[in-house]
Amino acid sequence: MGMQMNAVSNKDMAQKQNNLSTQAKGKVVAILGATGVVGTQMMRCLEERSFPVSKLVPLASSRSAGSFVDFCGEKIQVREATSEAFEGVDIVLGAAGDAQAKELLPEAVKRGCVCVDNSHAFRLDEDVPLVIPEINAQDIKNHHGIIANPNCATIIGLVPLWPLHKAAGVKRLIVSTYQAASGAGLPGLKELEREMACLVSGESVGKTTPFAYQLAANLIPQIGGFNEEGYTSEEMKMQNEGRKIMHLPELRVNCTCVRVPVMRSHSESITAEFDYPITPNEARTVLEDAPGIRVVDDPSALAYPMPLDTSDQDLVYVGRIRKDLSASAATNSLTFFCCGDQIRKGAATNAVQIAEYLV
Amino acid sequence: MGMQMNAVSNKDMAQKQNNLSTQAKGKVVAILGATGVVGTQMMRCLEERSFPVSKLVPLASSRSAGSFVDFCGEKIQVREATSEAFEGVDIVLGAAGDAQAKELLPEAVKRGCVCVDNSHAFRLDEDVPLVIPEINAQDIKNHHGIIANPNCATIIGLVPLWPLHKAAGVKRLIVSTYQAASGAGLPGLKELEREMACLVSGESVGKTTPFAYQLAANLIPQIGGFNEEGYTSEEMKMQNEGRKIMHLPELRVNCTCVRVPVMRSHSESITAEFDYPITPNEARTVLEDAPGIRVVDDPSALAYPMPLDTSDQDLVYVGRIRKDLSASAATNSLTFFCCGDQIRKGAATNAVQIAEYLV
Repeated sequence: MGMQMNAVSNKDMAQKQNNLSTQAKGKVVAILGATGVVGTQMMRCLEERSFPVSKLVPLASSRSAGSFVDFCGEKIQVREATSEAFEGVDIVLGAAGDAQAKELLPEAVKRGCVCVDNSHAFRLDEDVPLVIPEINAQDIKNHHGIIANPNCATIIGLVPLWPLHKAAGVKRLIVSTYQAASGAGLPGLKELEREMACLVSGESVGKTTPFAYQLAANLIPQIGGFNEEGYTSEEMKMQNEGRKIMHLPELRVNCTCVRVPVMRSHSESITAEFDYPITPNEARTVLEDAPGIRVVDDPSALAYPMPLDTSDQDLVYVGRIRKDLSASAATNSLTFFCCGDQIRKGAATNAVQIAEYLV
Repeated sequence: MGMQMNAVSNKDMAQKQNNLSTQAKGKVVAILGATGVVGTQMMRCLEERSFPVSKLVPLASSRSAGSFVDFCGEKIQVREATSEAFEGVDIVLGAAGDAQAKELLPEAVKRGCVCVDNSHAFRLDEDVPLVIPEINAQDIKNHHGIIANPNCATIIGLVPLWPLHKAAGVKRLIVSTYQAASGAGLPGLKELEREMACLVSGESVGKTTPFAYQLAANLIPQIGGFNEEGYTSEEMKMQNEGRKIMHLPELRVNCTCVRVPVMRSHSESITAEFDYPITPNEARTVLEDAPGIRVVDDPSALAYPMPLDTSDQDLVYVGRIRKDLSASAATNSLTFFCCGDQIRKGAATNAVQIAEYLV
């Protein structure tokens, strides 16, 4: 069916191929997990952003090895992701799961690679920078071979929060998310499409892998496992990764993560308390001047961020910016709604942006 | 397709018909807006709850007059909703829009009817009780002919908040909603089904009435019109109706209302600050003992409220109850997630419950 899953337009491909052949100083770039939805998007982002690739090395599990991926108009065979496969590679973009990242990326580092890893495996390690380039690009230089890409919902929430923090000093966040099926990878996307087809045809939905329950025409208020306090791992990422990325170890965060029947853009309803007063108009001005953001906030024109509009592009849209009516007189608090593409800015684009700082 | 829209089971209908014929003291009950989704559900609720109806008078606009509705196994012809149609009626259940309610219900009151009205028209009028029976049934007796049924999202959020308020004194609410298509009535339900069919078959979705934008595989962060501060009418209902129902004129409420591609259950992510300490376990105990609620809160069993599970039944499910990690040491704050059927407890069931207090 391919709802919203159209491939990125490759209109400038001819020119990029040309770039590629003339880039004497291009890098050998490996994609770990090249057949998944994030790995595939990473290749599209490298193409679109004319990243200097002298050779692309697509890696995947033995199950996918031998298949082909498209890159800059060529078919490239996928190799099995082994330690030896990283020989001669300059940059690894990691789009595999935690276990594979933990096993293989240290091997890549031993072989001289710099890895930008999208898994959760290293994100909170002290010697691993965790980076959203719009916020803490300066942390990249402290790497010891691995730079971690944050969780998708964390990226999409923090891109607009950062300029507001710089303006007014954020101290407390209350976040409710509306997270897309793509957060569960290609199986999540395919499952939502399958379930919608079942509902439309009146068939039973049956087994719902990778989701615990039917997602179509439903919501699942659980992403990841639960801790003892009843928070999910996804909810704690907003706190723990947010503190690290923004260098705010005292930031107070309360997050509720909910999976919604949307394809590939995450949305977030955020209430943020600040040290200093900031009006909605001041917030809009600050956000309009910040990188990676589009302010879409015109109630009279029914203009606000929506996941369909933010799909398959790189900006985080922010709108519904207003005074928090529940805040006491002494509290400086704003509420807003933001959306961003989970596969792009939430994962692949952010990783490629980090890699751009390496070259 | 009828996803989740199965009619209520009428297994006890024979017995109810019997009840009906022997109820010498039954009431003449008119349904204003009898052909809509809430009006239809009101008739199902009257049947299920064995409400003492001596005669049912289904009323609708001239467009629908002459059609037939089913009630207790009989086909009853729909009459045009005119002032005269209320002659001889005891109780009116109003499921029409604001304009029709404003025009016709005062005429019904003149003719001696008591009206339970689901529209927004009278909700904030000083001499009109606004009632969730689990919370303020005692207000019903102060009516002057009209009792208002609250907004659906307000009902579903307040049913679990009230017992927590009685235990610990609520002072601040931060609410993000996930609201179903049925909030826009039968046209909303049919539109979501139509859009899903378009997506599955690869057709263009086209015009999206009654929604401003495509809802399938999308979210729309607007329900109702905007005020000057950027809040929607739906968002302000949570504050204004909540204050009136709970008799808490100082209650501070911040609400973000989002339409989601779900059929008929609304969900809400709520953070509530209290005057006094209350632990998640204490909250669970309080909620388990409260009417109209089912606590579904067992992370180890992946048990939490979901809109599919709460569809077509009358309880509000509450779960994901946990300490608000963002609260300062001096603040008593909990976070939870709740779901309830928008057509039933959010509208029809609540109205019939109010009517039960009248007989």
